[in-house]
Parts: sequence; structure tokens; C-alpha cells
Amino acid sequence: MHELADRLGPDRFLAGHLIAERATSYWNCAPMQAKSLLLPRATKDVAEILRWCHENEQTVVTHGGLTGCVAGAESTNEDFVVSLEKMNRILEIDTVGGTAIVEAGAVLQTVQETVAGHGLYFPLDLGARGSCTIGGNVATNAGGINVLRYGMMRNLVLGLEAVLVDGTVVSSMNRMLKNNAGYDVKQLFIGTEGTLGIVTKVVLRLFPQPASRQDALVAMTGFDDVSNFLRYLQKQLGGNLSAFEIMWGDYFEAVTGEGGHRAPLSRHYPLYVVLQAEGGDPEADAERFESVLAKALEDNLIVDAVIPKSGSETDAIWDIRENFEAVLEPAPVYLYDVSLPIRDMDDYVARVKANVSKRWKKGRCYTIGHVADGNLHFFVAPFEQGDYHHASDECVYESLGAIGGSVSAEHGIGIDKLAWLPHSRSAEEIALMRTLKRSLDPKNLLNPGRVLTP
Amino acid sequence: MHELADRLGPDRFLAGHLIAERATSYWNCAPMQAKSLLLPRATKDVAEILRWCHENEQTVVTHGGLTGCVAGAESTNEDFVVSLEKMNRILEIDTVGGTAIVEAGAVLQTVQETVAGHGLYFPLDLGARGSCTIGGNVATNAGGINVLRYGMMRNLVLGLEAVLVDGTVVSSMNRMLKNNAGYDVKQLFIGTEGTLGIVTKVVLRLFPQPASRQDALVAMTGFDDVSNFLRYLQKQLGGNLSAFEIMWGDYFEAVTGEGGHRAPLSRHYPLYVVLQAEGGDPEADAERFESVLAKALEDNLIVDAVIPKSGSETDAIWDIRENFEAVLEPAPVYLYDVSLPIRDMDDYVARVKANVSKRWKKGRCYTIGHVADGNLHFFVAPFEQGDYHHASDECVYESLGAIGGSVSAEHGIGIDKLAWLPHSRSAEEIALMRTLKRSLDPKNLLNPGRVLTP
Repeated sequence: MHELADRLGPDRFLAGHLIAERATSYWNCAPMQAKSLLLPRATKDVAEILRWCHENEQTVVTHGGLTGCVAGAESTNEDFVVSLEKMNRILEIDTVGGTAIVEAGAVLQTVQETVAGHGLYFPLDLGARGSCTIGGNVATNAGGINVLRYGMMRNLVLGLEAVLVDGTVVSSMNRMLKNNAGYDVKQLFIGTEGTLGIVTKVVLRLFPQPASRQDALVAMTGFDDVSNFLRYLQKQLGGNLSAFEIMWGDYFEAVTGEGGHRAPLSRHYPLYVVLQAEGGDPEADAERFESVLAKALEDNLIVDAVIPKSGSETDAIWDIRENFEAVLEPAPVYLYDVSLPIRDMDDYVARVKANVSKRWKKGRCYTIGHVADGNLHFFVAPFEQGDYHHASDECVYESLGAIGGSVSAEHGIGIDKLAWLPHSRSAEEIALMRTLKRSLDPKNLLNPGRVLTP
Repeated sequence: MHELADRLGPDRFLAGHLIAERATSYWNCAPMQAKSLLLPRATKDVAEILRWCHENEQTVVTHGGLTGCVAGAESTNEDFVVSLEKMNRILEIDTVGGTAIVEAGAVLQTVQETVAGHGLYFPLDLGARGSCTIGGNVATNAGGINVLRYGMMRNLVLGLEAVLVDGTVVSSMNRMLKNNAGYDVKQLFIGTEGTLGIVTKVVLRLFPQPASRQDALVAMTGFDDVSNFLRYLQKQLGGNLSAFEIMWGDYFEAVTGEGGHRAPLSRHYPLYVVLQAEGGDPEADAERFESVLAKALEDNLIVDAVIPKSGSETDAIWDIRENFEAVLEPAPVYLYDVSLPIRDMDDYVARVKANVSKRWKKGRCYTIGHVADGNLHFFVAPFEQGDYHHASDECVYESLGAIGGSVSAEHGIGIDKLAWLPHSRSAEEIALMRTLKRSLDPKNLLNPGRVLTP
């Protein structure tokens, strides 16, 4: 260990109290655990670190922005922690080809804002944008609010560079939308949660900055209307629809309660949707957007609607959806991220809510989601002190497997959901995951105990 | 072999003259070679075949629609050929979730038309639509003309079922847009050209049938205008732009010559683009489309344009792009499929054309492409009898590696491009491909000698 410390120097190799000053993650303020904390400045540092770890059978936990929801970044004092925070540069922006090359530690919001300065648009967007890193977005195949139109992170990564467990640097820095020259090896590092290699650089796909954007908050009385309204919008707005976020009434009511967000619509509808469209012609698009909503009101697909008149009114609507502190009290509150076919959603949500009510007298199950993606988030609040994690899991996952749903739509498996993986994946799928892990990390050194049980 | 023949029966196990009656492929009319031809009717047949082949170290070549451009389906009389042609059913269409479940042998056009009957749209589209199969589209990660808006096949596959070389059936029939429960194992079978398993069923992502469609053929005088016009359209038409196909003047002139397609514009412009937009409001969209083109004419981004007035006029425009028989004579003519950053395209095309002219006195290099995807196709015609395959390859690939281009944008590597893989992929990428191949097919039985040299 000392030789590695000497080689890397004191600005890249930290030990002792400098580690304990850090929190475990955004969700866990307990002091971080690690044998050493490594802060590579360049790919060659990462290669050197992994080469040493491989030779010395040293486990490694990789850190990005520490906002992941599945304890994927939690480490022990037996692990090396490799944080990519010093590798956060934006290396190149190609305005003709619509690509950006960034280091894995670059923060999502920094990337969004920097490319916007060049008239370009990086559409991945999620609540943690101010902390999460591009490398973490790749490792977890991040989703968020614009998946409907732009896809998940997998769809926005054209190329990448990754370091394998033995220190081999695999450069697969493709810049083209299409490249079928052999296996697309970058897929191995997208959504595999850092268990097959450490991503160091990424080529991102950019889009032109949309010339116009329209937003609205609408209310509806039943779930059938939600899916009908979604299909109506997809048809009427064509490729312009970019977000369609659902909030069940219980969630809306809770976050707009005393001291919470202002409610721009009555707080007593069963369902709300925040939607967004992006287009090329501000005036015509706004007109069209309004007439499409007016027709939906006329046809009773929706029962109420508000179109914000300013940037701050728009932000206020999105705040209702994105800033959910109000439902995180009183602890414990358990967060979920499931996906399932839209046609099964209404029944399934009712069943989960019933399970929670049955299990805890005052229990609540606040529900929101990216409905067009088949993705729901629950906040299960028992309103009782105690460790109810497993009981809460049972309420949510009990009937999910039978309808072909997934225990993780966008958060990944990490450590938290390990036990539930077989609930959404077949034995053959898991065996195949193990084959991959064994061939790329035979000593099980990279983010061990994440995704797959040892 | 006889035991397998007995178990499968004579309608699934063919030998002798029944094989030789078939052509090798769309591109090669020589009789097909095979030890046996197997026609599984269900996944369990495929599993039984592969189990037997694995035990008996029998190589297998998988056949779809035989329209691939890289000799990927060519077999020898030592191989078993497994054709999925009898597994061509459309098993389920979910109009709410927007998914279709189809067997791998289903023909693309049949799928397109069947889902259209349900008001839905499967946007993968390419010239071979009448013969190519969904399984082949998956295995090659097919591209085509709508990649700009809808992505390649990888982006349109939600789930799949595949049989591994030892007969294990891996069912990964996800129906959701988002599923991050563990590694996304389906990626292993997309774009790997049948070398890691045989795909038997696919869950496809569908879209609402667009309410409106606009097409145009435009002409321009320089390549800078092409990329400026593309960015202008992406901005002005937002998400509605669905195709942007370039044709160099030499190609346009050749296919509109005597006995060829009618030319709706002068035949002497340097560059032509066929473009398509899809939207939700026929009247407003058409008006907007026309005004966007009018503005482009006014600004001299384009110098001429025609908007078809009927379905047959639209087909006629697309025929110019898709039916290129005129440039396939006189033999030999060599077809290419490269990708490269758009900013390098103009120089690169000029260099390839110069290489061809220098190599063959009367040589021509007809050029078309999906320019928004960075993808070009060349038809290199030496206008001399002889086998000039390698010389032609050199003309095209010589300067491609240096600019980070790919020798295969959408056709794959197959057998034809084996020697050129290292031209677009690093040694580390190829080593990683070999690691995957070794762990999933250690005996090298599945489509051996394709993608990777033995």
C-alpha cells in the first residue's frame, strides 16, 4: 500500500481522518468508511490504482456524486474508495457533430450548462443534477424526466473509456450515432454499476437547444384518463412531448400542505400530471399546445389545467414534482423505483397502497412516476418508529413479479435491492450476469457485493 | 446426427438436394452450402439443436432473411444452418403499452404492416424490409432511414429471448422502457451477429402512428450547406424530423439516367437530400414544413426543392434513394457502409472519390448516406473486369481510421470486413470482444469466423 501511496503522492492518496470527514452518501450522513481514499487526476492514475489492487487483491468501491438510491457507494474500512471527483473536466464540445467529451467526474448540471452556452442541449435530467456525475449516470444508466423523448443514459452515450480491473485501459471513444464494427463493448459499462470496470471518459450525444418549451400542470379523475391522455399527446404533439410526470393525489396533497409548495390547482383531485413539450417555433408551438390542452378539457380527458406564464411559475410547478422533502418525514420513509406495463399500473398501485394501509394503521404510500416509461416511485411512510425496510419491501414487491415488473427501473440494484433481483430476473438471466462478472472481474474486486450476491 | 434428425423429424431437419436448391443470399446466387438445414418451429427446437451441437462440437450458422451485406450468413458443407423462417409469428400486440412480441423469423415489413393495423408504428425501416427478419435486425443492430429520430434496433428492442450455445434458454422478455434490475443482458445479443446466441423472440417498442407526414427532395451546392440545413431543420422541426438522406450528384445522375427514375429536379446539382418529418397535426405541420423550406430557399441554404403532391410522387422520390440497381452495373461494384464525424465528411468523401479516380481510369464512387447519423454508403465501380475488392477497400478505408471513423456503421463485420476491424477498433476493444466470445461460446460454434478472426 505504501508503494502505491508513494507513487501517487499525497494529493491522490488519502488516509485516516481525511476520509472520516466525508459522509457516506447524500442519503446517509454516517462517516465514510475506507482503507484509503484515492483521487485520480487522469486515466493513467486509475490504471495504476487498479493494476496495484488487482495484484494485491484489494477491493475497490468507486464514487461519483454519492446521490445513488441503492447504497451502491457504501464502503467498508477494508475497501479502497476511488473517487472520480478530480476528473471533472469538459474536454471538447463539437458543435457540428453534436458531441461533448467529458471526464467521468463531471457534474451533470455543469455539463448541461456548459453545452447550453454553445447552443446545445444535453437532455438527461434528474433531481440530483447538481451533484450526480456523468460517470455515475453511465454506471447506473440514469433515467429521469426526459426519457420519453431522449431515452436513458444508454441512449446518450456514444463512446467511453473505461479501465478494467487489471488496469487495461479500453478506449472506445466513438463519436458517431452508428458504429457496428464488432461488439459494442461500451454496453458492458453502462448500467453495470461499476462492477465490470471504472468509466473514466465519456462521449455524450447532444441535441440542438430547443427553440421553444411549453409546460403545464393538469388534473384528472381516473387512471384510464392518464394513459388515454398520454397517447393523445403523443399523437397530437408528435416528437415534441418531452416529459409526462404523474403524481397521485396523496403525494400532491402532502407536498402542497402547510409550509409546502403553493398549489396552483385544487389539492383534491385523484391524479395530476406535469407535462413538457419542446419544439422549434415558439409562437406556433405555444398556440398548438394550448389548443391541444383545450381539446382535452373539452373531451373530459383532463378536468383542470394550468399553463405557467413565466419562468418562475414553471419552476414552481416542477418544484411540486421534484422537491419532495415533505414526504420524507417522519422517518423512516422508504423510497421505491419500480417499472411495469402501463396497463397494469392502476391495479398495482391500488394493491400497494392497500398493502401499506393494512400493514400500518397510519401508513401512507405517496406515489409519483414517469408514467410514459412505465416507471413509478413510492415513498412508503409507516408513520411508526422502527426498522420496517423488509416489511415495506414486501408491500411493494409482493405482486410485482407476477406482472413482469422490475424492482428497479432506474436506480439500479446496488446493495439495497440485492435480495429482490431474482424477483424481476430469471435464474438464466442472473447466471448470465455472473458469467460476465466472472470473465471481467474474476477476483470480484470491483464494487464487490453490488448487483450480484457474492 | 441421425438421432437429432429423428428427434426433430423431417419437417425440421433437411439434408441433401433440399439445401442446394437455396441460394447463398440475396447478394450471392451460388447454391447454399450446409451439412444440414434445420428449421425450428419453436424455441425448444432451437434449444435441442444447440444442445446437440454443443455436445458434438458442431458449428452452426444462423439464417434470417439473407439480406445482410457482409457475408455473415455464408456457410460451408461442414456447418449446420439454422434458419428461423418457420418462427415468424406475431405473438402479441399491446396497444396500451405500445409493445409487440414477435418471433425472430418475422419479416420486418409484416411487423410494420400488422402493427399499423392497430394504429401503431414500428419505425425501423430499410430497403430490405420485405425480406429481412426481426432476428436479423437484432443480430446486426440494424439502422436504416429513421435512426435520426428513433434510434437503431438497439433502441427499439425492450426485451428478447435467446438460446445460448449449450441450449440454455435465456428469457429476458422485458416490456418496459426502463429496467435497471441488474445487467441488461439483452445487449449481449444485439449487434453481435449471432456469435453469442440465437435470438428466438423479441419485445419491440412501438410508437403511435404519426398523424401527418411530410417529404421533400431538395438540392444544394456545397456540403457546408448540408450540415447547416440539417441543424436548421433539427431546430425548426424539433422532434418531428425523421429522415435526412443525402445523395451526391454522381449517384443522383446515375440512377435518374436513361431508363432510370424520373428526376423531379435538375440532374446537375452537386448534392441532394430527401427529408421526412412526422407530426401530429396534418394541416399545421404541412404549412410549417413548407414555410421552413421556403425560408431555407430564401437564405440560400438550399437552391431547389420539390414537395410531392401525392403518395405516388412521394414514393417516386424515395425510389431514387432506395432503388439503386442502376449503379450496380457493370460488375464488379463494391458496397461500403462507413461512419465518421459529420465535420470530417466533406474532405473524406473527396479523398475517397480521388482515390477511386486515381486507381481506375473510368472508376466511379457513387455516394449516398444517412448524414445525420454520420453514415455514408459508397458504391465503388471500377468499370473494369476483375477482382478489385481489396484495392477498393483500400480506397475507402485508407484515411478512415485516422479520423476515428468506423468501417461499419450499420452492416456489421460478418466475414467481409474481418480484416478491417482493427482499423476502427483498438486492440483493447477487440481483446474485450474476444473475452466475451470465449465466455459465451468457448468452443467457437456459433457463426464461427464472423466478427472475430478465429
